[in-house]
Amino acid sequence: MKVHSAHLIPPRTKVKLKHVSCDDTGKYTDEDAAKVDLAKHRDCIDKYQEVLYAGGERGVLIVLQGMDTAGKDGTIRHIFSGINPQGCDVTAFKVPTPLEAHHDFLWRCHNAVPARGKIGIFNRSHYEDVLSPRVHGLMKDKTAKQHMQQINDFESMLVDNGIAILKFFLHISPEEQKRRLESRIEDSSKHWKLSASDFAERKFWPDYQRYYEEIFTATSHKHAPWFVIPADNKWYRNVAISRVLAETMEGMKLEYPAVTVDVASLKL
Amino acid sequence: MKVHSAHLIPPRTKVKLKHVSCDDTGKYTDEDAAKVDLAKHRDCIDKYQEVLYAGGERGVLIVLQGMDTAGKDGTIRHIFSGINPQGCDVTAFKVPTPLEAHHDFLWRCHNAVPARGKIGIFNRSHYEDVLSPRVHGLMKDKTAKQHMQQINDFESMLVDNGIAILKFFLHISPEEQKRRLESRIEDSSKHWKLSASDFAERKFWPDYQRYYEEIFTATSHKHAPWFVIPADNKWYRNVAISRVLAETMEGMKLEYPAVTVDVASLKL
Repeated sequence: MKVHSAHLIPPRTKVKLKHVSCDDTGKYTDEDAAKVDLAKHRDCIDKYQEVLYAGGERGVLIVLQGMDTAGKDGTIRHIFSGINPQGCDVTAFKVPTPLEAHHDFLWRCHNAVPARGKIGIFNRSHYEDVLSPRVHGLMKDKTAKQHMQQINDFESMLVDNGIAILKFFLHISPEEQKRRLESRIEDSSKHWKLSASDFAERKFWPDYQRYYEEIFTATSHKHAPWFVIPADNKWYRNVAISRVLAETMEGMKLEYPAVTVDVASLKL
Repeated sequence: MKVHSAHLIPPRTKVKLKHVSCDDTGKYTDEDAAKVDLAKHRDCIDKYQEVLYAGGERGVLIVLQGMDTAGKDGTIRHIFSGINPQGCDVTAFKVPTPLEAHHDFLWRCHNAVPARGKIGIFNRSHYEDVLSPRVHGLMKDKTAKQHMQQINDFESMLVDNGIAILKFFLHISPEEQKRRLESRIEDSSKHWKLSASDFAERKFWPDYQRYYEEIFTATSHKHAPWFVIPADNKWYRNVAISRVLAETMEGMKLEYPAVTVDVASLKL
């Protein structure tokens, strides 16, 4: 994958999230210019998605991770509304069901990977397995390392089988999360989004950040890179992610498939 | 379901498709006015879809059927691009795989029904099972009748469990199909859509229409109605279908769920 992005984590890089800006806006000084570019990226993604679908040979998997309120749902809404839903599958991973918990942690994710021809979006993902259990002392470091190696093997296999993988960490500051939670409390139309656990998990912030840093170091690869996206500004988050996706799809050099029928022989 | 539409097939009605206009445009004399209404319907669907998703109690299943080139893909693209893909799952049913064919014909459809909180779109559906095999003399009338009863039972069960069902037949004329196939031949960027079977199946047109008529009589119900949508004009097809869906979702009286957490107790 040849994507140039200031937010790309090169392989085997140690990341200190507290040194990465949450409110960087790159080359943009205001929202309007970013919106123009977002619209261009969406058109581009939509165009290549049709070719992806027609070809049925390649797929794209987008992994979205981030702290609660980081904007995973909003990213999906703002970038992918406008894309043909027939070529785009979204899977939101919640606490594993009893059935899912009776399988290895990759089972439910494997089941949800995009088919060839599709863009698949994971709203949370297999990376949850090496986050929350570690934060709560339910997984040893050695097990977590094994799981990260298993994730690497799994993703390599997918890439070798035609699926491009892009992984985005939506990087918000604890202050921004506080503002967003407060706004959910103040706005009764957002009360359905309130979860007591979001508030409880806040006190584990440094642990989550530390384990995310380990994930980036261990699982960012040229073929399946992580991007740490400054996400305090929703509009920058959207344009930064859409740019990476649009450029990646452009770089895939997708083409409409060769005709398999003898067009001249078709009679009406 | 209280949807008023000139295209609704009342229960137990005998339909003669050749007497139903394919190029009716209802109250619209031109495309521009229809586009304005389509945009309104899309906004309305988008708004209610968020409430549907928040509530997680109800779902909506949309079944799209029609002759080849009738515009099932185009309907999805034009109505549902713009809807949050996280709340919208599309399943395109093809020739059954060996695994699917080893199960009853409803198995793969049941697996794909929308979860509560979602809009699910079937691009072709369980109705294919009582069409193509009949046209090709592979299914007895008695078996087809049994299958249609099984479909009725299946759909009743879904409705009783909170899933609203809307079924649309995209009604095109054989002349319009001819034009569309010709345009696919002429435009090399559409060659990937060409299938020799589309041309071969054309000669069975009257049989397909006849078996569709039987389907409408046997399986249109107040709780799971069929709509025969004039579809020679794509713009009218889009506005007619989006209207039924928007009005149905409005009529569901969806509400944001009650708050389950004690908002006052949430501490930051």
